[in-house]
Amino acid sequence: MYIVLLSGGSGKRLWPLSNDLRSKQYIKLVNDEEDTKEKCSMIQRVWKQLEKSGLASHSIITASKGQVEIIKSQLGNVDIAVEPNRRDTFPAVAISCAYIKSVMGAKKDDVVAVLPVDPYTEDAYFETVKHLEKILTVSDAEIALMGAEPTYPSEKYGYIIPGKQGKEYIEVKGFVEKPDKERAKKLLDEHAIWNCGVFCFRLGLMEEKAEAYGLKLDYHEMFNHYDKLPKISFDYEVLEKSEHLVAASFKGLWKDLGTWNTLTEEMGSDSIGNTIMDKQCENTQVINELDIPVVTMGTKNMVVVAAYDGILVADKNQSSYIKDVTAELHMAPMYEERRWGTLKSIDRNSKDGEFTLTRKIKIFKGKSSSYHYHEHRIEIFTALSGEAEMILEGVKITLTQGSAICIQANQKHAIQAITEFEYLETQVGAAVGNDDITRITFNWDEIPVAVLN
Amino acid sequence: MYIVLLSGGSGKRLWPLSNDLRSKQYIKLVNDEEDTKEKCSMIQRVWKQLEKSGLASHSIITASKGQVEIIKSQLGNVDIAVEPNRRDTFPAVAISCAYIKSVMGAKKDDVVAVLPVDPYTEDAYFETVKHLEKILTVSDAEIALMGAEPTYPSEKYGYIIPGKQGKEYIEVKGFVEKPDKERAKKLLDEHAIWNCGVFCFRLGLMEEKAEAYGLKLDYHEMFNHYDKLPKISFDYEVLEKSEHLVAASFKGLWKDLGTWNTLTEEMGSDSIGNTIMDKQCENTQVINELDIPVVTMGTKNMVVVAAYDGILVADKNQSSYIKDVTAELHMAPMYEERRWGTLKSIDRNSKDGEFTLTRKIKIFKGKSSSYHYHEHRIEIFTALSGEAEMILEGVKITLTQGSAICIQANQKHAIQAITEFEYLETQVGAAVGNDDITRITFNWDEIPVAVLN
Repeated sequence: MYIVLLSGGSGKRLWPLSNDLRSKQYIKLVNDEEDTKEKCSMIQRVWKQLEKSGLASHSIITASKGQVEIIKSQLGNVDIAVEPNRRDTFPAVAISCAYIKSVMGAKKDDVVAVLPVDPYTEDAYFETVKHLEKILTVSDAEIALMGAEPTYPSEKYGYIIPGKQGKEYIEVKGFVEKPDKERAKKLLDEHAIWNCGVFCFRLGLMEEKAEAYGLKLDYHEMFNHYDKLPKISFDYEVLEKSEHLVAASFKGLWKDLGTWNTLTEEMGSDSIGNTIMDKQCENTQVINELDIPVVTMGTKNMVVVAAYDGILVADKNQSSYIKDVTAELHMAPMYEERRWGTLKSIDRNSKDGEFTLTRKIKIFKGKSSSYHYHEHRIEIFTALSGEAEMILEGVKITLTQGSAICIQANQKHAIQAITEFEYLETQVGAAVGNDDITRITFNWDEIPVAVLN
Repeated sequence: MYIVLLSGGSGKRLWPLSNDLRSKQYIKLVNDEEDTKEKCSMIQRVWKQLEKSGLASHSIITASKGQVEIIKSQLGNVDIAVEPNRRDTFPAVAISCAYIKSVMGAKKDDVVAVLPVDPYTEDAYFETVKHLEKILTVSDAEIALMGAEPTYPSEKYGYIIPGKQGKEYIEVKGFVEKPDKERAKKLLDEHAIWNCGVFCFRLGLMEEKAEAYGLKLDYHEMFNHYDKLPKISFDYEVLEKSEHLVAASFKGLWKDLGTWNTLTEEMGSDSIGNTIMDKQCENTQVINELDIPVVTMGTKNMVVVAAYDGILVADKNQSSYIKDVTAELHMAPMYEERRWGTLKSIDRNSKDGEFTLTRKIKIFKGKSSSYHYHEHRIEIFTALSGEAEMILEGVKITLTQGSAICIQANQKHAIQAITEFEYLETQVGAAVGNDDITRITFNWDEIPVAVLN
């Protein structure tokens, strides 16, 4: 059995901590199961649970290109199916299956289970995932789904409506999305279960679906022709057209940590970062990743998040509508996490058509950049701490605290951290940002260095 | 009649907008009386009112050294009595009177009225101030005070208890500070009035009081021996020992804008800066001076302030206790306003005993620094916008966008803005901050410049 963890999401639901280059699943906010003093990210938590249940060796993560570095920094060298661009869940599942077939050698009859990356759950969940393979065989259904037994008539979740109840599985009669309170109560009476968003099927099914769009289940082919697949969800394209669906249910902890309301309940502490709360605060969680303090006084049922991208002050119930509000925001992410370090925007200027962008950049010990140049900007580096080597037009220069260097447009340069190295980079020119870059080589050891006499 | 505006205050009551180098009275938050689209500061508002009432020409402002530049930038070239260090209101009133005598040539029998800098009031207030001189003469009292007629039984203000009520004035029987509701109601029945914190007396009175500490009412002498005066309030040292006090009352708008609760009522709009409020917010004011957005959702009766020094999220009633909470904070101010421009700390690093401090500095057109050097640090300047001239060890250098310059320890340098000029300054060394500076000359035109051939 193969497992696909779908690591998508726009990053807007946990604004301001998440952004397009920093998705909620990578932020270290939830309690580590084993060490409650440590916080881990959602993806780290679910991966640990996959390892524990023996499923990890056949698991892959499907993510966009921009997420590859952070996944590797959090999980090490795991299998990642890369989406060349964001489409929807049907194409994402298709390219996942292509990866499983081409890279991992899976066969037509092998079973694949697709899991969301952000369930907050416990071991029983993964045992039920394993059980899905069995019920797929026993029932001869096209797709097996997974549900959690409801503990209350939630209006926020989707429900699976049961038909005939077998010994090992449930026939699926239909679905209901986010019912109102009354309908939710009736659904509980009808033994409906919460839809966990898990699909399990045989690889052959996706082979047929891909062929319908003229594509083979081949990773490289699909990567190069990803645009042939429509922007449509797996639910619409596959699930709703399916004639025979079954489901298994499990009883136990299961929560969607997709909103501040649900996430703050699992934080384990009321505050993270530099915060002061007075004694009149009630049921309030404060997360602060800025250097300046956050002071809360007399707040009730609130979540306060101060992050590089913005500040959120929300009544907890109201916070679930954040996507509607932040849709108005069109700002470049202020903070990016990479495999080799982090980037934080600290100043932007645009005046009379002249642009500057200053970022504080941290490079982890031993990591290096590519050898590259920029056509339309100069860059000024000011070293803040640690030690690094720079190669500028073939000449090696050592940078230590207080070193400053000015890199002209078209000058080739690369940097490698000898110890953890922090510096300010000020970009000045007609085009600042990430686009104006031409790479000569990615590998530090291959950069030509002049020998000075 | 001379007017002293006491511009003291620790700056903690309107945290995070106010700090030790940025007091509440200078922040442009209140509506301008004449142009409601413009915001002005409390001191600008009260100074305009003094001008309107004809009192400004005999008015001085008493403030600490650090406030001189911002007062001049907001009010122009006004008379300022400088406190060499912060003591309390008795020493502050004494040095004010010394200034009025030495610099403005006032005589023993001249009348001085001391006013707080932050009343939110109307013209009638200043007419009553003028009236104080008359009642001081008619009553032959030592001190005349001013009260506002209460409009409700406030528990937050102090009260003046009236004795015999004359035609032109009230004999003062005593004082009550912040009574409870019941007591406040009784005070209203007794015709008590709110104490506006205004004292009026003849210069001779302070002459005697200063002599008791071995000091003459001479500005330079008092400036040099300010420590001889005890750290005690004018209330304790003078008012409570006084045998004959009278008061005048006025009817009209009078508010203490000293807390977020009262200040936000006079803002005239619900938000300042980059903010988004959803429709579920009620009675909420948001002030944001940061570049990143503040989003508020479903907040009720709250004040949210995001400033360079920190972030406050407070229930309005609770916000009046802010001094107790922020007393725990011991941070250097992140933002400073000067006569010549502004300074904003944007990054601080301290690692293994090495310090760096990066500030974004703006110099107004035509303004310049002194010619100076630092013993224990180097400085790297990166020009962001505008144009400036620098003199470095006698050599003139032009700085435009993208210019970077490294100033070694002990290298003499000065900078003058040709157009409004913004740059990043990174300090690196054993001592970063404002202390390590040796000035050669303050005047740009006197800096020796080498002539290059």
